[in-house]
Amino acid sequence: MEESSFIFADNPDDTKTAILKATFDALAEHGYSNLTIDRISQYFPKSGGLVFYHYDKKDEVLLDLLDHLLKRFVEIGMPISENKSPEDRLRALFVQLLPQSDEQQVEKYEIVLAELRMQAAQKSEFRESLTNSQNILCEQVLDIIYDGIDSGDFRDVNPEAVADFLVALITGEIFERVTTGGSLPIQSELDNYIKYRLLKNNSCSCQKEK
Amino acid sequence: MEESSFIFADNPDDTKTAILKATFDALAEHGYSNLTIDRISQYFPKSGGLVFYHYDKKDEVLLDLLDHLLKRFVEIGMPISENKSPEDRLRALFVQLLPQSDEQQVEKYEIVLAELRMQAAQKSEFRESLTNSQNILCEQVLDIIYDGIDSGDFRDVNPEAVADFLVALITGEIFERVTTGGSLPIQSELDNYIKYRLLKNNSCSCQKEK
Repeated sequence: MEESSFIFADNPDDTKTAILKATFDALAEHGYSNLTIDRISQYFPKSGGLVFYHYDKKDEVLLDLLDHLLKRFVEIGMPISENKSPEDRLRALFVQLLPQSDEQQVEKYEIVLAELRMQAAQKSEFRESLTNSQNILCEQVLDIIYDGIDSGDFRDVNPEAVADFLVALITGEIFERVTTGGSLPIQSELDNYIKYRLLKNNSCSCQKEK
Repeated sequence: MEESSFIFADNPDDTKTAILKATFDALAEHGYSNLTIDRISQYFPKSGGLVFYHYDKKDEVLLDLLDHLLKRFVEIGMPISENKSPEDRLRALFVQLLPQSDEQQVEKYEIVLAELRMQAAQKSEFRESLTNSQNILCEQVLDIIYDGIDSGDFRDVNPEAVADFLVALITGEIFERVTTGGSLPIQSELDNYIKYRLLKNNSCSCQKEK
């Protein structure tokens, strides 16, 4: 059960977290449409009956799981030191949100997040949670862009447009990883986007020579 | 039934296309997990029994629908005139792949495509179709980038890295539109990416003044 320690402790103490962990493992394995409360119980190390005691319907436990994961997704971006340059903070945010890892736990996390996000296409409760967390992620990016403009590191870009662009890129990369053969290696081109589009002094050879 | 004329004729002549259209409408309305062959039959104007005659399992008809839609998605990018500049071709490709339309048909198309793509997370047949079509899309972008480098319009970028970056962006934008409140307006920042990162002569004020 070590696989999901990126998101959950190996053996969560409280019952609710243990149920969410079982749901996470079951969803990664079977996908949304094959998931049942009964199946979740099979991944639950304690008495399976406890899952039924806490939840009647799979969407209830999945909504709690979505909230748990989105909090985690947002927290991932939090600990980036404000002492670093805006450029380094932006790079660090991307590395943290898109870990280049073959670890099964990261792969499972991305599958589960995409499966749950997909529910938002049909169901307003999922859509609401998701929209909130995307807004928080957008704010994190915005913060860095504003700081970069203020410090004179970045050009005078439209911060909202840049943040939306970067959030769409993160979303796309995760969805690609989950649904196609390989992940698209966007990291190097992202570096170039930062260099040529955002940074004030790195984009022109003529300016460099000054 | 006019809604999906973007993808299907209003009343497709042949039975198979008519079944795919019924599947498209049913999937957009109910989502993958609530879809059954029986439900598809309800969206089929002819005898519902014909659906069962052609397909036993929903995944069979959905795979055919996925192939149909992916062909359409790839065709959308095809008719862009090679007489235009690489810059204009790239912009035109994005406009065609991400139509700024409130039309219900476009919205449905994006929901259905994302629902079907999500199946690729678990099922190898879906993953295979999808990977093929993403490769074709990548080739279309690559073509434009190579032409731009050859013609001297674009910098000497890494074409694969740029194509992967742009495809992730398209995917992310579609997934955002489907799963959150609003679409992220990436078009203006995409223009800036083209201007500052790709175009050779537009990125430096000092060069402009030459």
